[in-house]
Amino acid sequence: MNRRIALAAIARAGQVAGNGLIDRRVFLTAGAAAGGIALTDAASADTLTVEPWMKVPGSPFIGYGQPSRFEDKVVRVAANPPNAPGTGAARTPLHRLNGTITPNGLHFERSHSGIPDIDPDAHRLLIHGLVKRPLVFTLETLSRYPMESRIAFIECGGNGLQLYQKDPAPVNVQALHGLVSCAEWTGVKLSTLLDESGIDATAKWILAEGADAAGMSRSVPLAKAMDDALIALYQNGERIRPSNGYPMRLLLPGYEGNMQVKWLRRIKVTEGPTMTKDETSKYTMLLPEGKSFQFVFPMEAKSVITQPSPGLTMKGPALYEVSGLAWSGYGKIAKVEVSADAGKTWTPAALQQPVLPMALTRFRMAWRWDGGPTILQSRATDETGFVQPTRAELIANRGTKAFYHFNGVTSWGIAENGEVKHVYA
Amino acid sequence: MNRRIALAAIARAGQVAGNGLIDRRVFLTAGAAAGGIALTDAASADTLTVEPWMKVPGSPFIGYGQPSRFEDKVVRVAANPPNAPGTGAARTPLHRLNGTITPNGLHFERSHSGIPDIDPDAHRLLIHGLVKRPLVFTLETLSRYPMESRIAFIECGGNGLQLYQKDPAPVNVQALHGLVSCAEWTGVKLSTLLDESGIDATAKWILAEGADAAGMSRSVPLAKAMDDALIALYQNGERIRPSNGYPMRLLLPGYEGNMQVKWLRRIKVTEGPTMTKDETSKYTMLLPEGKSFQFVFPMEAKSVITQPSPGLTMKGPALYEVSGLAWSGYGKIAKVEVSADAGKTWTPAALQQPVLPMALTRFRMAWRWDGGPTILQSRATDETGFVQPTRAELIANRGTKAFYHFNGVTSWGIAENGEVKHVYA
Repeated sequence: MNRRIALAAIARAGQVAGNGLIDRRVFLTAGAAAGGIALTDAASADTLTVEPWMKVPGSPFIGYGQPSRFEDKVVRVAANPPNAPGTGAARTPLHRLNGTITPNGLHFERSHSGIPDIDPDAHRLLIHGLVKRPLVFTLETLSRYPMESRIAFIECGGNGLQLYQKDPAPVNVQALHGLVSCAEWTGVKLSTLLDESGIDATAKWILAEGADAAGMSRSVPLAKAMDDALIALYQNGERIRPSNGYPMRLLLPGYEGNMQVKWLRRIKVTEGPTMTKDETSKYTMLLPEGKSFQFVFPMEAKSVITQPSPGLTMKGPALYEVSGLAWSGYGKIAKVEVSADAGKTWTPAALQQPVLPMALTRFRMAWRWDGGPTILQSRATDETGFVQPTRAELIANRGTKAFYHFNGVTSWGIAENGEVKHVYA
Repeated sequence: MNRRIALAAIARAGQVAGNGLIDRRVFLTAGAAAGGIALTDAASADTLTVEPWMKVPGSPFIGYGQPSRFEDKVVRVAANPPNAPGTGAARTPLHRLNGTITPNGLHFERSHSGIPDIDPDAHRLLIHGLVKRPLVFTLETLSRYPMESRIAFIECGGNGLQLYQKDPAPVNVQALHGLVSCAEWTGVKLSTLLDESGIDATAKWILAEGADAAGMSRSVPLAKAMDDALIALYQNGERIRPSNGYPMRLLLPGYEGNMQVKWLRRIKVTEGPTMTKDETSKYTMLLPEGKSFQFVFPMEAKSVITQPSPGLTMKGPALYEVSGLAWSGYGKIAKVEVSADAGKTWTPAALQQPVLPMALTRFRMAWRWDGGPTILQSRATDETGFVQPTRAELIANRGTKAFYHFNGVTSWGIAENGEVKHVYA
């Protein structure tokens, strides 16, 4: 059976939506062979070259390991506006990663006045304001409290802002959506410390302030602080990196990244919101009628295909795995659907288990690409039933000047030569 | 109420086992304040110093991030025997970590001839032997197959071997048990590739061979290869590090680390085991009567307290969180019990959710230390009902020359001055 005929047979057998989306089990059994992915079928032990690295002992151990030198292009891309030292963002290379955890060296960063070099022994966390007992913690005293771990995404409120623009930006998924990452965070529940301080009955908010030169500060509803907020000390097992808030940051699962204050030094319990710079002149959403949404906290359900995506060229007609990430600040991802015909037909992708609330969820879908031009899309539904809108729906509802919280569908155009491009559809 | 009296009251209120093990909820509410952990209760905003790092912009972004310079002691400790380049192991600093994920830079390593510097474009994976279609894969062709992710521990078969010795080694948890780590691994199911190659009905085993200078090779039952084995390409999201098998390794969830062949270059499907060096002269367990156990694959249920542990001195009588790690190669951890009185009484610890099969599980227990000398222990039970044995039970059953698979209870002696020491009990 030649390869073209085999591909067509598979497509007929396992078709679940238009233009070659097939049942994953087909790919997992007979599909792959017929797809002709393996290099050769006349292989033996003689096929293997004894490469130079098998002929001499390799290098010795080092205390703290690093990636292979062949992976030196797998890095964050940073943008710093001119004349604003340390302001800007560094984006996670989502197209080069797989799974759901972001390694600490590639977790996205957003800084408002650079990354402070904090001496952990000198750092203090103050809890004061509307409390019976103001408290100060050193890192050491804080480390003796009961801890919790949770795997959670953090997404910058401005992630995806280029999709509000009139024309699709000719850039890759890192540049478009790279301000989202996911890690296992471990720390002390903020509610434990607030309980100890004795909150006044009039308190409804807190102010969280960072120890960077910007003194980055945001107001957070007390209800969230008492629910699942953590004073996070560890990220993926080790102490949080300087760029992510060393020695401690606020973790507010599902909320926009800017509120999850890094280098946390102060929690003030307050009656109302403090109206800081970053919740008045910034991180508000300008609506078409000239008013703004303020205090939009959870990041709404969103998804994006990471493989294939711009820069990862398709290598001719064959079976492929379409894979990407989905997340919601409102809980678990319930479903991710994929379309290979610009949204005409959709089919649910496999979700990597366990699906955790407010964590990145990896989805996977088998696709037999026939070599024709088309458009790939994904859309997420979360456990509240919220469905990720199309870009057109989002903009019809919100206008083009909202800047923050873009969670519409992202479309990748596939050309006949296999090139993948950001398009609107 | 003075602090001593408060501590005593808490102990009475929430006691769940001997010598101060208390209900975690007590610690989570009123306990902490009475424990006097907070630095001061006369704090205000004036208490906070404006530290030097708040007065100047911090440092800019870099492509691949690193830990704080203040964490430069949080490294792996390596032991290389003399005259054997690259042979040895580098151990994870379990006492300095929290949560369950091990960051890639600190994942333990075991190498038999150093870390090869493999060019991923030149690397090949051959599948041959008792198959209809021998196959060769490049990294690129392999990357187009359907993938899966799973969080799994890897433990060296020799982890904990010092506990077979007559006297307790005066070292820390890193030196005793640091050959276990946990990561999210992503790759292609080996069963997908074996299905494609067409396994002969006579096949019952595979041989897995690495591309290091040692050509490290092990036999694996075909049933395991077809069940949950992965050709892992990613570790915590990014490409596997050179020290952990770049560009690909075999992942055999729950099996001893040595079998999870790094730098994987060849899978040969065979009728029986190949009897390689590392499954005959090594990685067998010598029993008292002079015979050996061969082919003991899954790592049995085990646990160890990481905080406190040797090197982490207790700071006087107060409330503490006792925390550690548990794991089983046979599935999920069902229960971890803690004793603060040398094994006389035990009480179940809280298990960090989600508890995943063949993954490290973090346990946490609240303890009011009264300042007296005592012994802390933990014991794990897995979902098969297997209970981690005491050291005495293990040795009574197996002798002292087995070398591998030590999973008896580890005991930490607490001295009146707060010092923590490895002891036998």
